[in-house]
Amino acid sequence: MLEHGGRLLRAVRQYGIARECWLDLSSGIAPWAYPIPPIPVDAWARLPETEDGLEEAARRYYGTHQLLPVAGSQAAIQALPLLRPLGRVGVLTPCYAEHPHAWQRAGHQLIELDEAQVDGMLDSLDVLVLVNPNNPTGRRVPRERLLDWHARLAERGAWLVVDEAFIDNTPEHSVIDCAERAGLIVLRSFGKFFGLAGVRLGFVAAELALLQRLADLLGPWTVSGPTRVLAQASFADTLAHRLQIDRCAAASQRLAALLARTGLAPSGGCDLFQYVRSEQAAPLHDFLARRGILVRLFDQPSAVRLGLPASAADEQRLAQALTDYHKESA
Amino acid sequence: MLEHGGRLLRAVRQYGIARECWLDLSSGIAPWAYPIPPIPVDAWARLPETEDGLEEAARRYYGTHQLLPVAGSQAAIQALPLLRPLGRVGVLTPCYAEHPHAWQRAGHQLIELDEAQVDGMLDSLDVLVLVNPNNPTGRRVPRERLLDWHARLAERGAWLVVDEAFIDNTPEHSVIDCAERAGLIVLRSFGKFFGLAGVRLGFVAAELALLQRLADLLGPWTVSGPTRVLAQASFADTLAHRLQIDRCAAASQRLAALLARTGLAPSGGCDLFQYVRSEQAAPLHDFLARRGILVRLFDQPSAVRLGLPASAADEQRLAQALTDYHKESA
Repeated sequence: MLEHGGRLLRAVRQYGIARECWLDLSSGIAPWAYPIPPIPVDAWARLPETEDGLEEAARRYYGTHQLLPVAGSQAAIQALPLLRPLGRVGVLTPCYAEHPHAWQRAGHQLIELDEAQVDGMLDSLDVLVLVNPNNPTGRRVPRERLLDWHARLAERGAWLVVDEAFIDNTPEHSVIDCAERAGLIVLRSFGKFFGLAGVRLGFVAAELALLQRLADLLGPWTVSGPTRVLAQASFADTLAHRLQIDRCAAASQRLAALLARTGLAPSGGCDLFQYVRSEQAAPLHDFLARRGILVRLFDQPSAVRLGLPASAADEQRLAQALTDYHKESA
Repeated sequence: MLEHGGRLLRAVRQYGIARECWLDLSSGIAPWAYPIPPIPVDAWARLPETEDGLEEAARRYYGTHQLLPVAGSQAAIQALPLLRPLGRVGVLTPCYAEHPHAWQRAGHQLIELDEAQVDGMLDSLDVLVLVNPNNPTGRRVPRERLLDWHARLAERGAWLVVDEAFIDNTPEHSVIDCAERAGLIVLRSFGKFFGLAGVRLGFVAAELALLQRLADLLGPWTVSGPTRVLAQASFADTLAHRLQIDRCAAASQRLAALLARTGLAPSGGCDLFQYVRSEQAAPLHDFLARRGILVRLFDQPSAVRLGLPASAADEQRLAQALTDYHKESA
């Protein structure tokens, strides 16, 4: 298993701080969960059924005609490498680690690329995989460039896989409206923007033939009944979408300013997290953890990622800890 | 996608009968759902974490030390064929169709067997797969025979896969207490006995090295947060286990008697369903559906499977329809 944020139970054991005392900023999940609607007993009791309204609500929300609900975009990340012959797979790095892990495990040849290398390598790739905006750096590749890359790849039957897990805050940058084009595969995550990562829901938008192969590989009933009910309510609550976009943007800007004030100016970020490159990432992570604040540590390159504090009190607690760290390390 | 029970929305469209008017007996799921406990917001909002108490509760309930929660035993059915080199896979037939489908799709050579053929073929198989008690026939292979087959298979590094999706009603027949032996893989389904098929939960018990490979293949966060909370409550409610066992047994016996009275004596069954072989299965299925009663139709061999009616009123409704069918077809 790879390392991930959100492992609070481990931090509880490691630092001897009770669960309820932690400020967990280790994931990039919006800290304001959409309301949980009433879930009818049937949703828990019966086998889930497709086309119960979820697919229709998702098609409207995402603005695409063809999509497949999956048990978190993670499920698609694991399955896609099994749906084509072994080949050369370029991954824009640094990248959410599950992508290269899945392609490599399936036997594909992995080629790590930075954005400047893509144009030169594109014609030799069978698949190009990227996260947009990227996790953890926040780097964003412009939509026009992505569609250009896709067009070149598609000429040879190659794929462009765009993981848009963090794009709901800035949907104007999404390419999901083009996902019916052969060879363009767009992944969306439900849990991050809606603040409901426990429900395990994601979507894949792509051409129909590929979605059918993916559905066959993943099998029936992948998404739970309660999740199907809850997601329909969340998608329909369009007023709340605007509110969530606005408060994430404001909180992310405040977080960036706070980091800059304490000598940790972010090197990137998006509306759901900030990313700080620092040779001192490991001691910073440990310093914060000893104060019950969990952030996500990365090794290569050395960096931390901080999710959004949910309240002024949480911001203040983080600010105090970072100020102390700044003094001690000065 | 293969055919399955529980497709009520399709029946609604096909027969023009409103959803709430149906008596759905098309699945083998207990018709009395365990109570849904309060689900804390964190379970919906945060990424699920392992070893939050679910694994421990499951180890106690199933009586085994080593198991892996999965998103329904279906997830394990799809994954197991990817965890060994291509080989000769015997499947005890008729069998829940997802098993042969998954092994065949992965490229293994499929050999359909009846129980009498197993002893002669066993030494030439790399894997033997069976459902016990079987779905849909209800046939049960004695525990001693299974352990004997396993011992012979394990000598050569071959596997015995026992899908015990319907065994919670008769746990004394389970082999899960032996699942730490190399090459014995036991699948359990949470939803059927607990009447909570919408939550997508199953367990795999096997030797630790195999569970680790399976966990890596399936990836992180496969089981949703609310499901993890709910299942812990269900496992802990031991008084309710006895009640569920007793009322399923009584309802299944009444169902068998009712079928026999109307000329449809079951050819098999277990405490969660009855199975009726009949050349007239298709017309019977259609006759019942036109009266808003959904049963599961099988082609090869021609048969229907009926789940348990939840109440005396449902039993009476089924009895009346079967009596009418008996008269009309007499």
